[in-house]
Amino acid sequence: MNKASRLFWPVLVTPKNAVVKQTEQLSRSQKLLTELGLIKSGSNGTYQLLPIAQRALDKCINLVQQNMQIAGGQKISLPVLTPTQLWKKTGRLEGDISEFYMVRDRSGKQFLMSPTHEEAVTAMLASTAPISYRQLPLRLYQIGPKFRDELKSRFGLMRAKEFLMKDMYTFDVSESTAKESYAAVSAAYERFFAQLEVPYVKVQAATGIMGGSLSHEYHYVSAVGEDTLLQCSQCGYAGNLEVLDTETQTCPSCQSTSLSQVRGVEVAHTFLLGDKYSKPLGATYLNNAGKPDALTMGCFGIGLTRVIAAALEVQSTEQQLRWPKLLAPYDVCLIGAKQGSKEQLKTEQLELQLLEQLSAICGAQELLHDERKELTIGKRLMDAKRLGHPLIIVVGAKAPKLELHMCGEEPQELELPEVLRMVQAHVEHKQQLLQGTIKTKEQDLQQRLGHVH
Amino acid sequence: MNKASRLFWPVLVTPKNAVVKQTEQLSRSQKLLTELGLIKSGSNGTYQLLPIAQRALDKCINLVQQNMQIAGGQKISLPVLTPTQLWKKTGRLEGDISEFYMVRDRSGKQFLMSPTHEEAVTAMLASTAPISYRQLPLRLYQIGPKFRDELKSRFGLMRAKEFLMKDMYTFDVSESTAKESYAAVSAAYERFFAQLEVPYVKVQAATGIMGGSLSHEYHYVSAVGEDTLLQCSQCGYAGNLEVLDTETQTCPSCQSTSLSQVRGVEVAHTFLLGDKYSKPLGATYLNNAGKPDALTMGCFGIGLTRVIAAALEVQSTEQQLRWPKLLAPYDVCLIGAKQGSKEQLKTEQLELQLLEQLSAICGAQELLHDERKELTIGKRLMDAKRLGHPLIIVVGAKAPKLELHMCGEEPQELELPEVLRMVQAHVEHKQQLLQGTIKTKEQDLQQRLGHVH
Repeated sequence: MNKASRLFWPVLVTPKNAVVKQTEQLSRSQKLLTELGLIKSGSNGTYQLLPIAQRALDKCINLVQQNMQIAGGQKISLPVLTPTQLWKKTGRLEGDISEFYMVRDRSGKQFLMSPTHEEAVTAMLASTAPISYRQLPLRLYQIGPKFRDELKSRFGLMRAKEFLMKDMYTFDVSESTAKESYAAVSAAYERFFAQLEVPYVKVQAATGIMGGSLSHEYHYVSAVGEDTLLQCSQCGYAGNLEVLDTETQTCPSCQSTSLSQVRGVEVAHTFLLGDKYSKPLGATYLNNAGKPDALTMGCFGIGLTRVIAAALEVQSTEQQLRWPKLLAPYDVCLIGAKQGSKEQLKTEQLELQLLEQLSAICGAQELLHDERKELTIGKRLMDAKRLGHPLIIVVGAKAPKLELHMCGEEPQELELPEVLRMVQAHVEHKQQLLQGTIKTKEQDLQQRLGHVH
Repeated sequence: MNKASRLFWPVLVTPKNAVVKQTEQLSRSQKLLTELGLIKSGSNGTYQLLPIAQRALDKCINLVQQNMQIAGGQKISLPVLTPTQLWKKTGRLEGDISEFYMVRDRSGKQFLMSPTHEEAVTAMLASTAPISYRQLPLRLYQIGPKFRDELKSRFGLMRAKEFLMKDMYTFDVSESTAKESYAAVSAAYERFFAQLEVPYVKVQAATGIMGGSLSHEYHYVSAVGEDTLLQCSQCGYAGNLEVLDTETQTCPSCQSTSLSQVRGVEVAHTFLLGDKYSKPLGATYLNNAGKPDALTMGCFGIGLTRVIAAALEVQSTEQQLRWPKLLAPYDVCLIGAKQGSKEQLKTEQLELQLLEQLSAICGAQELLHDERKELTIGKRLMDAKRLGHPLIIVVGAKAPKLELHMCGEEPQELELPEVLRMVQAHVEHKQQLLQGTIKTKEQDLQQRLGHVH
């Protein structure tokens, strides 16, 4: 069980009447995460994740991994340091390289602090004996830090210079089988985003510096988004404006004029790469005639720290965090009577009983016990609401009735068995999400509209 | 279930009669891991972990985390990039800095690719409102890549320039409570090393560049170790030679002359740091009089990639890997008859039945099915033995009897129920290790000798 009194959670204390020099515009998620002591700024554009945020991140990692395994992914780890010579071979050091962190080792050899790993993974395959066509498709993924020296790093975890990413690379015998890999990984992405229950938009996107022939982005719609998306309410088409004529008045898919523009935060991106990397780096497989052929590749990224921040950005209120259920740091927060209050003695037994029963239902790790009894229930309830726990249970003046606060809903006074049922229902809902058996409103809508593939 | 035919596992093929230019001396673990396609060298001193090795690493991470939680640890993430200005304040840029990777961002600001995080974590605490003495001890840990531009990077994962580490930092009100934290984390370390069942030596060590007043190292004894350890067979004292007079003839603890020297690979290190970092960086807490006082710190590291390689180095044979049970990539490998062999039809039903029953006992994820039926049983058995699976089951010519190969033991011919019992016993043994209820020979010995604290 987790005790609030032991939890490292350094709430930002701004003295009353203090003149706060606002040096940058903060987004809602950034403001809440910082004020509540979930993240801290390390240096410009880098962030420290503190225990509560780390719990959400670990849940996000597990969820993504589950979906990568379903998509046939095999996990690997590639070094942060990639020799720049590999990037010279693919021509990616020829354009604007101001976003790259470059470093030299003691012998003078130059490395990139990898912003992405196409070169590294392709060179790794090129340096093994060519694998047989029978071993393909090959789908490798990793989870690790990425580095981009952004000109405009901002909004906290939403555009940080150092961030955590899941990147997958697929290898196939041909364009047509590569498209099957693309479809399989895309299905895993859609499953993941559906599990988060945050409405997302999948759009046709530009291939840009990454290259290749086909690309999609996954966006959360938010005013702080840096992309402009065009959506057609007739056929469900959606595209990033950068792939379209900015003067577009009619839908490129159904020619209707029912187009609207929204701002989006890109949280994932997929590319069909073809042989853009395998050719110059010489990554081949042996075809059924025993001859080497260039591998056809795809790459697929999810910004893990970004997706958490963007989900919070979209869902939170000005004062309270709102988590996707599967990412909430704890399922339940339990608050008992204040020390010395007239309820304390009366309710202590009930509180202990509840702790035990809740642990049995949701697991001790999912239970946060706010036993800071030197604080009033009101103060602790405010903290709990700001942190956005899906279920907050108060054992107080109304005992044996309990007060149940479900995130975003009016509080209810309930008997203990009813409260336990609600917790049970929450756990079951999570279970269904994990198994992918819930169809969300969003999924439903997207299915009705038939979205871009 | 995991299928061997789909597993990315690029065995190093060296053509017969090829002249191999041996540019560096390879250690046993490095040679086996490389030849078997578990790791690949990225550039000098950096390594790519491929799927089988990654599974062992993930198990190691989980095991360490479990022990960190028991020691009251809270998980966080600190950026790889630490501003060098923080290291200037603690004086750690004044000595030999040739091992540091330094990088500048677009504004010219300089960063270290952190080789360790004392400065970063201390500065983080210094920049929050001082926490109350009631919130201490505080024990924070993280798992992430570390960077050291070693002059002599060698032996693969044992001394890599980029490696994965678990680092914990503890914060206390005084030297005496800091010693309690030190004891609690040390106990977690001993539990972890006991769970790996690889004999280890805990020695008194030098504090070196890290500073502080007390330090211990955990070593695996190996000829390729870079440290010389002195052990006393009388009283159990053990020390790193670097803290002793090299001419030492008598035990510093019991004055006996029963001293012997061994070579050790350092796999973990603990330090009581005092206020070496909290003073210059201004990290304080509020004492019971409400006044700020410097925090007393400790730091504790386990080289995760290194501990795996070192365990393999110590336990493996020239030809076969030997894993700690809790880190073995799979518990069981199942090999069926060759396609077209006279046994195939007869045994297919048995193989399917076994797959189902094994999955039920050890979990589908822990089962590797080598269904490469185009290969002989002999060839696949050799692969399986080289990979060092704890249990290998062959369904072949002796059906309905099965052949069970337990790692390092003579094969046995057994009936199906007996085989299932052996697998069940293995799973139970792992469970007991996880719960810490097994006392290993090593633990027993150390307890008898009473080792250094």
